[in-house]
Amino acid sequence: MSKVRKKKPQRVKARLSRGLHDLMSQQQLAREWMFQRIRGVYERYGFVPLSTPAVEYLDVLLGSEPGDEATKQIFTVSNPEGEELGLRFDLTVPLARVVAQYRELERPFRRYQVAQVWRGDKPDKGRFREFTQFDLDSVGTKSELADAEILAAGCDTFEALGIERYSIRYSSRKLLEVLLTYAGVSADLGKDVFRVLDKLDKAGLDKVKLELTTGYKDESGDTIRGLGLAVAQVAKIEEFLTLRSEVRQEVVDRLRTLFDRVDGAGAAIATVEKISDHLHALGYGDDKVQIDLSIARGLAYYTGPIFEAVLLDAPQFGSVFGGGRYDGLVKRFSGEDVPAVGASIGVDRLLAALRHLGKLHSRRSTAQVLVTILDPALESEYVALTWELRRAGIAAEIYLGNPKRGLGKQLKYGDALEIPVALILGEDEIAKGIVQIKDMDAGRRSSEAIVDREEWLARRPGQREVPREQLIEELRQLLDTIDRDAAGMITATSAS
Amino acid sequence: MSKVRKKKPQRVKARLSRGLHDLMSQQQLAREWMFQRIRGVYERYGFVPLSTPAVEYLDVLLGSEPGDEATKQIFTVSNPEGEELGLRFDLTVPLARVVAQYRELERPFRRYQVAQVWRGDKPDKGRFREFTQFDLDSVGTKSELADAEILAAGCDTFEALGIERYSIRYSSRKLLEVLLTYAGVSADLGKDVFRVLDKLDKAGLDKVKLELTTGYKDESGDTIRGLGLAVAQVAKIEEFLTLRSEVRQEVVDRLRTLFDRVDGAGAAIATVEKISDHLHALGYGDDKVQIDLSIARGLAYYTGPIFEAVLLDAPQFGSVFGGGRYDGLVKRFSGEDVPAVGASIGVDRLLAALRHLGKLHSRRSTAQVLVTILDPALESEYVALTWELRRAGIAAEIYLGNPKRGLGKQLKYGDALEIPVALILGEDEIAKGIVQIKDMDAGRRSSEAIVDREEWLARRPGQREVPREQLIEELRQLLDTIDRDAAGMITATSAS
Repeated sequence: MSKVRKKKPQRVKARLSRGLHDLMSQQQLAREWMFQRIRGVYERYGFVPLSTPAVEYLDVLLGSEPGDEATKQIFTVSNPEGEELGLRFDLTVPLARVVAQYRELERPFRRYQVAQVWRGDKPDKGRFREFTQFDLDSVGTKSELADAEILAAGCDTFEALGIERYSIRYSSRKLLEVLLTYAGVSADLGKDVFRVLDKLDKAGLDKVKLELTTGYKDESGDTIRGLGLAVAQVAKIEEFLTLRSEVRQEVVDRLRTLFDRVDGAGAAIATVEKISDHLHALGYGDDKVQIDLSIARGLAYYTGPIFEAVLLDAPQFGSVFGGGRYDGLVKRFSGEDVPAVGASIGVDRLLAALRHLGKLHSRRSTAQVLVTILDPALESEYVALTWELRRAGIAAEIYLGNPKRGLGKQLKYGDALEIPVALILGEDEIAKGIVQIKDMDAGRRSSEAIVDREEWLARRPGQREVPREQLIEELRQLLDTIDRDAAGMITATSAS
Repeated sequence: MSKVRKKKPQRVKARLSRGLHDLMSQQQLAREWMFQRIRGVYERYGFVPLSTPAVEYLDVLLGSEPGDEATKQIFTVSNPEGEELGLRFDLTVPLARVVAQYRELERPFRRYQVAQVWRGDKPDKGRFREFTQFDLDSVGTKSELADAEILAAGCDTFEALGIERYSIRYSSRKLLEVLLTYAGVSADLGKDVFRVLDKLDKAGLDKVKLELTTGYKDESGDTIRGLGLAVAQVAKIEEFLTLRSEVRQEVVDRLRTLFDRVDGAGAAIATVEKISDHLHALGYGDDKVQIDLSIARGLAYYTGPIFEAVLLDAPQFGSVFGGGRYDGLVKRFSGEDVPAVGASIGVDRLLAALRHLGKLHSRRSTAQVLVTILDPALESEYVALTWELRRAGIAAEIYLGNPKRGLGKQLKYGDALEIPVALILGEDEIAKGIVQIKDMDAGRRSSEAIVDREEWLARRPGQREVPREQLIEELRQLLDTIDRDAAGMITATSAS
């Protein structure tokens, strides 16, 4: 062990850096299924796809004066010229760059983008450093209809994924600004107040109130500094936060009473109401979308309506869809004010929630049929059969491992890959003009019910002979049945 | 201009680093169309998708002793921990890592992957530093059927993309090794000889012969060093290179004569013949796949059959599909010999070739219908109509720009986005229970044929009234017609 090997290059350990992960076939097929559903909704709304490179200039990503926090999160990149580059951490900043860069782009520019983003956060269970976002944005429109459309697309997306019990909640940064005026809090403190309010969900009202005033020591003994607001100010903030109703119009009406004659209240409330009206007209009722004044959203760039969504039967996965209006982001590049609104789906989180709910349509294999090699001397028969299936549109795999491995091992391979059907034929079958079809799942399912060895041998569950010329037709029918069963089976398995 | 602004953050220039590019809707929709076709073929063959992170450890990418050349091409990455990372430059190395890392993975592992890769090459027209590869590989199988399957999948892919005139050519590194023996060239010189032979296509036979022997000065006066082979050796190499036939079996037969009793020739020729036999049995004849002994392939890791493909009507785009057998790559990680064969489609190059050939199915918009705002007071009517279309499965966009912009500007917007149909309705139409349908393309097409202004006004090309209750049905019929026309139209436009 102490000798240094000279000639042989050293082995490299096959590994990934922390927070990165591979997606194997089952996960990737599930994602593809989800992407297709979401894309279907967004394209029905007339949004168009955009693709931007993963690598951007650092100042494009962070602005000309980035804070330390932002810089720490970035994966930095260097090209052969040694330029200062980084991997994008979201899809909104690249969108703003594109809008500023291509002046000739027609506006409104309504685009979707599904792509990886990278953040140097501390990795955690289900929280990765390279993850996927599915974004939807309308750039260059002030209309409340654009906001309503994003929310409606969120509802339609959940429904396209088979989720009926969800709740999209919205509020507005403008309402929060009115709240500052109402409570007599200086605008300078606004960002800090919003940051504290954003903790409401996790920390609860009492702690939020302490943080707004005197501060407190948390469980671990750390000091949480207070913002020093007066008790009367916090009372007014509490009035706002506890103004709750499951009926959107009621929230609007009570806001009108609460903010009676406060500067800017009329316009801010009208926007929230107009979005609600649009949604009502389109059939997105109070059961699907609520006004929730406790929403603040962490990101600094929001300027108007803000929103997020939870799945009611899987609230532990947090917000799976969130966004808002950001009217100032393009300005970083062009100096031009360009109104914009958009939302992002956290793909990995939504997938995890769907899996938990047993709503994830997935499979491990793309092959529907495994053609086994019972007799290596008959290889050309198996090869011809495989291509016959493929040309008939049936996804088929011919066993490519060592053909001398016995049939049992080949079937085990097909089983591990969850290929639903295996075909078996030898000299006998060829002479008789038949093929043995083995329904792998049926075999497994019935073998659980059969206790008697004689019965097993007599029945050979899931296996039967069909005439060669009827093979394609028989396979089509069988695969059709299996498909229907599989949808249910995967649900049951995943939910457990 | 000389004063430094303190308060306002400086504007950032919206730009991309060299060799990187954005893909706007039309390009992205074309790619999606192509991906779907290719994926359809690969899944019918039972290959499963895999997704690996863009970021890998540098030693995983380059091996433990990388050469300078390789290192220069890498985009290096650093995470918050400051680890030595890089962006992948192909999809084969990450595949080898996956196979070595997950020992439990069933073999053969037959996967496809479509993803971006990054190379710090000098960017050029149509040659990017971030580009997409679509890879297909079978890992863990020695069978020639696996090689034949990759070639067949290549043929089926071209045909799925509407390309009938293509040529896939293959040879084998093993044949080249036999050639070294035959010509009495030492195995040490093998890599250099293969590198020179790889230039045959571009440099021609004469220059290749000079480089194998004495070297020469090229047009720019640079000295190309010769390998110092003897004339008799080069004569033998030339015999091999000029052994050409469009009939695969003829090449095989002549190779048997040429390499009569040369060590290792029997097995090397048998492999090439076996692949040919499989392909013949499956209907991939001499017109589609040829044996071409002049192929050498640049990459060092190939160990057996090697192949590439050109489109016969667009040879200037070079090889759009290439690969080979690489039985030693997994060994870098696990020390274990794992046979593997695969191919890569150069997505951007193939897209460019398809566009050139007028075979690219693309459009700019996803919206089929633009609902215009003729009268802002009727907004709720337009909104309701838009959702009615969406729910009927018709992709619809409601004009979200300033509604006070006139109808002309709104139609111009729809035209720029190539939305095929616009709907127009005002108070009159609502009172009469009708909607104006405007076929944007028909309008453009007929206006070219109409010279008389009166005739124009009388006919209003492409525009007609339909009863409100028949709208969906009428739109479906119209869009169906437009779809059929569009396929042809795009072909004609792109080919010009």
